[in-house]
Amino acid sequence: MANHIVSAFSEELDRLSADILRMGGIAETMIADAARSVVSGNNDLAEETAARDDEVDLIEEDVERRIVRLLALRQPMATDLRAVIAALKVSSELERIGDLSKNIAKRVHHLSVSPDVASALKGIERMGDGVVAQLHAILDAYGQGDDQLALQVWFGDEDIDQHYNSLFREVLTYMMQDPRMIGAGAHLMFIAKNLERIGDHCTNIAEIVHYQITGRYLSSSARPKAPLLDG
Amino acid sequence: MANHIVSAFSEELDRLSADILRMGGIAETMIADAARSVVSGNNDLAEETAARDDEVDLIEEDVERRIVRLLALRQPMATDLRAVIAALKVSSELERIGDLSKNIAKRVHHLSVSPDVASALKGIERMGDGVVAQLHAILDAYGQGDDQLALQVWFGDEDIDQHYNSLFREVLTYMMQDPRMIGAGAHLMFIAKNLERIGDHCTNIAEIVHYQITGRYLSSSARPKAPLLDG
Repeated sequence: MANHIVSAFSEELDRLSADILRMGGIAETMIADAARSVVSGNNDLAEETAARDDEVDLIEEDVERRIVRLLALRQPMATDLRAVIAALKVSSELERIGDLSKNIAKRVHHLSVSPDVASALKGIERMGDGVVAQLHAILDAYGQGDDQLALQVWFGDEDIDQHYNSLFREVLTYMMQDPRMIGAGAHLMFIAKNLERIGDHCTNIAEIVHYQITGRYLSSSARPKAPLLDG
Repeated sequence: MANHIVSAFSEELDRLSADILRMGGIAETMIADAARSVVSGNNDLAEETAARDDEVDLIEEDVERRIVRLLALRQPMATDLRAVIAALKVSSELERIGDLSKNIAKRVHHLSVSPDVASALKGIERMGDGVVAQLHAILDAYGQGDDQLALQVWFGDEDIDQHYNSLFREVLTYMMQDPRMIGAGAHLMFIAKNLERIGDHCTNIAEIVHYQITGRYLSSSARPKAPLLDG
């Protein structure tokens, strides 16, 4: 490729990465705010959080259009092609993280916070913090092309799964002890499940980043996992 | 492009579509068998179903590698490029449908079928049938490039959501009436939720098929939806 084409390509790729990181930043805020609105029972914060999902969706659509155009106009090869495919896939993972965070926020009005569930809510808060940290780290790894950090996130999902297991058990116990808790308990379970799935999307991003950097695929079956109690 | 290159490209694209349809066929069987193993409490069928997810994952990895190679070697434009992007995205949706079906199957051993839940199980069966029909139709639309059928699937998701709503309500009622049902009830809720999400993936595929055929994006916000009771 002529030099000015190469530079137009890498400039467009930089802009794509920047938008993906921005999208990731919104997703990170959404998870944190969704977890916070669950714990505090703050319906306004929950509604604001759910509404932000549209921003994430719009960025994803825009990123995808630009990627299709980039593929058609620039016809990138080798590492450039890997970077473009990675951008497409990471943005799709982030879009799903936005969806899941929105779903968490939309459950807040079903929860009536009672002292009985305070400990489960603490668990949601801790799990939310863990998931936010995973997303933050994998966005850093993507932004900086840091394979070591990507692998660390990949291995770190086991902790999230363990969190999920103890929350599942705890909420089940509350529901059995007090049937009035069953409605709220069901929502707490879905909230915990959504956080666990956001963790899975972070490991998916870790696999994409590793592929972008090394050109090699990570095998999910090689990853240490805490067997989920509920499946 | 020279004629022999064009033909090599369309041959490879046909092979990709064929593998994606095969992958979709396995996913369809997995949903049906997972729902059937829930309803019948058949643990062997559940285990076989969960095990088939590896097949789906392997096809997806293979399809993705071939797509990256195809993009690099053939540098397709316009409708060809759309077809390649669509193949990449459809295979990723099918991979997730496989995951969700596996997750349904893995919950079977947590359910002890009692006469009390027979009606909820009927609901799971009906919802499973509905979801299988949606996937079947959207695979036909993809295979035949049928935009009308794709739109029909897109609009049809509302029924799946209504199914989900009535199941959610029903299972909650069982759990409240008999706290011994709480454990199994939680799993039934996740099973219904997984079917609802498989329905969402079918509408995602409908959007991809519509984009492949027309080059235009469908807006999710334009789709009629039954507001989910649980979110």
